[in-house]
Amino acid sequence: MTFAEHFERLGERYLPEVLVLLEDVVGEAGLTGSGLAEMCRYQFDTGGKRLRALLPLLVADCLDEDPAKTLAMGAACEMVHNATLVHDDVQDGDEARRGRETVWRRFGVPRAIDLGDAMFYLAVLLAQRAPVSAGLREALARRLLLETLKVIDGQEQEFALHADPRPTMDRYFAMVEAKTARLFVLAMAGAAELLGQGGRVIAGLTEGARQLGILFQVQDDVLDLYGDKGRSERGSDIAEGKRSVLAVHALENAAPDDARWLREVLDKDRKATSTADVDRAAELFDRLGSLSFAVRELRARQHAAVDAVAALGRPRLSAMVEGMSETVLEPIRGLV
Amino acid sequence: MTFAEHFERLGERYLPEVLVLLEDVVGEAGLTGSGLAEMCRYQFDTGGKRLRALLPLLVADCLDEDPAKTLAMGAACEMVHNATLVHDDVQDGDEARRGRETVWRRFGVPRAIDLGDAMFYLAVLLAQRAPVSAGLREALARRLLLETLKVIDGQEQEFALHADPRPTMDRYFAMVEAKTARLFVLAMAGAAELLGQGGRVIAGLTEGARQLGILFQVQDDVLDLYGDKGRSERGSDIAEGKRSVLAVHALENAAPDDARWLREVLDKDRKATSTADVDRAAELFDRLGSLSFAVRELRARQHAAVDAVAALGRPRLSAMVEGMSETVLEPIRGLV
Repeated sequence: MTFAEHFERLGERYLPEVLVLLEDVVGEAGLTGSGLAEMCRYQFDTGGKRLRALLPLLVADCLDEDPAKTLAMGAACEMVHNATLVHDDVQDGDEARRGRETVWRRFGVPRAIDLGDAMFYLAVLLAQRAPVSAGLREALARRLLLETLKVIDGQEQEFALHADPRPTMDRYFAMVEAKTARLFVLAMAGAAELLGQGGRVIAGLTEGARQLGILFQVQDDVLDLYGDKGRSERGSDIAEGKRSVLAVHALENAAPDDARWLREVLDKDRKATSTADVDRAAELFDRLGSLSFAVRELRARQHAAVDAVAALGRPRLSAMVEGMSETVLEPIRGLV
Repeated sequence: MTFAEHFERLGERYLPEVLVLLEDVVGEAGLTGSGLAEMCRYQFDTGGKRLRALLPLLVADCLDEDPAKTLAMGAACEMVHNATLVHDDVQDGDEARRGRETVWRRFGVPRAIDLGDAMFYLAVLLAQRAPVSAGLREALARRLLLETLKVIDGQEQEFALHADPRPTMDRYFAMVEAKTARLFVLAMAGAAELLGQGGRVIAGLTEGARQLGILFQVQDDVLDLYGDKGRSERGSDIAEGKRSVLAVHALENAAPDDARWLREVLDKDRKATSTADVDRAAELFDRLGSLSFAVRELRARQHAAVDAVAALGRPRLSAMVEGMSETVLEPIRGLV
């Protein structure tokens, strides 16, 4: 069974239950009928792959445990991921997500702030529902809090990177590890912890998830410019001024004139960015080896993820991490 | 010993320890040196009475328990209160708090959203530090989550009340109970629960805290227009368009022409509101009995708070609630 098949099978079996939990916790908090419930439903109706919801279930299944034990945790991961999306969209001024208006665009910024705040707390309530001992529940809640605080700090780091005239790859990777990878660590290492696995398995999954998270983000950065499918607008990261792996590598390595030009393109208004700007940036990334750098990183992160988990001697877990990394790379298969 | 003396004495003895906890938890989360730590310090440096931090300690002391047992909880209450302040200031566009720039004004809206998000989670980490059993710690964390979710819903209700052309007193009180009173319930009933008190004491303190919270907010609304001290700008609530107890009572009871005029004054730009507008609104509130209504409510809430706690037969606790209600009413003593 491939990773995609495994993912789909678990999704068909368990996603309906996760979605019930996401709705149910709103009632548990006494918020049925409130504006928060309406917005929460709107946010979840936008869909998405539900990767964070299913990751703990996949790990449980590969550890030969009952995936149902991690349902509440999967729901908590999905809830906290969406809390960050709702606030990120406010912070970045993004007007659309998955083809629909973002929450702030639909309900206004003040109410979108309320929704994100509520979802952060609903996630902890979900973690408290895990069917394990009080001690393990507390450890899970604590992990949810600590990993999410790193995600929030990663968002802070991204603002700092954006404002930095001389960003470095070190700071880029620190930002990505915090902002993107820590939710993977939460979902994967947290599931192992919840299931009472030993420190070695938790540590291996922590490192595997960390590398997968970075792989995921670097892939996303590369896909924006070089992907052969999926995105409607090529180079939207450049238009948005995002400090992607490509942009940071180029800013760090370009001659002063090229760096100045690139900064100007990144910092100008989204609508003012032309196709010619995007083409010239892509040319610069080629010339400076930024794309090759990113591709080398993708390979290295994939190997590091697989190696970290392979060392645990759990073949199903290794196969899952390998399959997942292949799935992440699929949209840019021609490059890697 | 008066309430003010008791408050001051506990503050002198324990506030330094609370402030250490507020700083310490930032380090526990691995955020020392991050932008979040800097903004957190800025927010706490703005000062304030630290009422939420000290309420659990006051309750513990009046229950003849060691106040130190509730230190982490007091810090959690103070942290979550400040999280709501940071986000409220963004939502309302308030530029100054306690004589300093608000966080969003100083660090920008996106970073203020990050800070509030982080503080909400740091508060739960603080609750997890309470020196009690895992079961009681989980109950405390759960109470923190549930009461705070009501506070967030109260903020939602305030937006709805603001947009409502025909607000009612029922909806005003529901909003105040959620937005203001639930943090009092958290601090006071939560302290009793943490200390292992029985259901009767917790229920009595819940009702007492609920009434004190409403008293606190109605007093704040009245003070803005009729207070003889404290505020620099009389009628700032009217300029800001706030749906105060006075505004809602007047909108519910005014003739259509008066209601239309009042709505226009409330909804016009803050800077466009003149002293004449404020005077005429005050006149309207007098004529419609809005001020007398508020004063009757203040007396009723004070009695209800005192009665709820007196029924518990714990004289020190009753004296504290009575003294606290008198302290809340002090700035508008001439009216009540």
